[in-house]
Amino acid sequence: MRTEQEQNNLDLVLGLFAHVLNPMDADAVDRFVAPGYIQHSQLAPPGRDALKAFLREIRVRSPLAVHDIKRAFVDGDHVVVHYHVRPAPDDRGWAVIDIFRVEDGLVAEHWDVLQPVAEGGPNPNSMF
Amino acid sequence: MRTEQEQNNLDLVLGLFAHVLNPMDADAVDRFVAPGYIQHSQLAPPGRDALKAFLREIRVRSPLAVHDIKRAFVDGDHVVVHYHVRPAPDDRGWAVIDIFRVEDGLVAEHWDVLQPVAEGGPNPNSMF
Repeated sequence: MRTEQEQNNLDLVLGLFAHVLNPMDADAVDRFVAPGYIQHSQLAPPGRDALKAFLREIRVRSPLAVHDIKRAFVDGDHVVVHYHVRPAPDDRGWAVIDIFRVEDGLVAEHWDVLQPVAEGGPNPNSMF
Repeated sequence: MRTEQEQNNLDLVLGLFAHVLNPMDADAVDRFVAPGYIQHSQLAPPGRDALKAFLREIRVRSPLAVHDIKRAFVDGDHVVVHYHVRPAPDDRGWAVIDIFRVEDGLVAEHWDVLQPVAEGGPNPNSMF
């Protein structure tokens, strides 16, 4: 059962995808991410400014990137999002699960795990 | 806020790690996993019997494997576990996030994303 606070936390993270990650909009980061942001992803250097630089870089490198959210969960101050990211619409792309910790209405900490979407393995079921 | 049902779902999955995945015990699978188990992991073929075969295989291949759970969450019938799995204690191993769907007190569906733990990237923070 989601409390109102949990629903707010989930909505914040879905807003992060809608307004920051999908459009790769560095200028919208401060509305969603805390100044002391703790980054565990190995894609970007630590900190909120590095996240902005990363978004500016990938917006140039892969302007057609698509984040396709498959499912999202919230438990207290942690939000989990499972999605398919494709750097270009015809790429197989990556399966990703992100975990965000929310503090005082902003994303304060982030972990992720990424795996390339492959074909021809032992399991014909979709990764999603 | 976790309901009693959510706590039961979380405990079921933590039991799956303690009694099935950590000891790689195929004989304990039926206590935790539904007959109609839907597998999305690309490591194993679909189905509960294939999970048992996979556990028997990795128990021979990596008998000292360690699953180190870092954090776990529950939202309704979905449970999320973030952990560090090392095929041998001195391996860097893999970062993994699993999502399980629980139905009628058994694990009915499973997704995962795996990423090798590397060193030397742009982020000195731990993946965990």
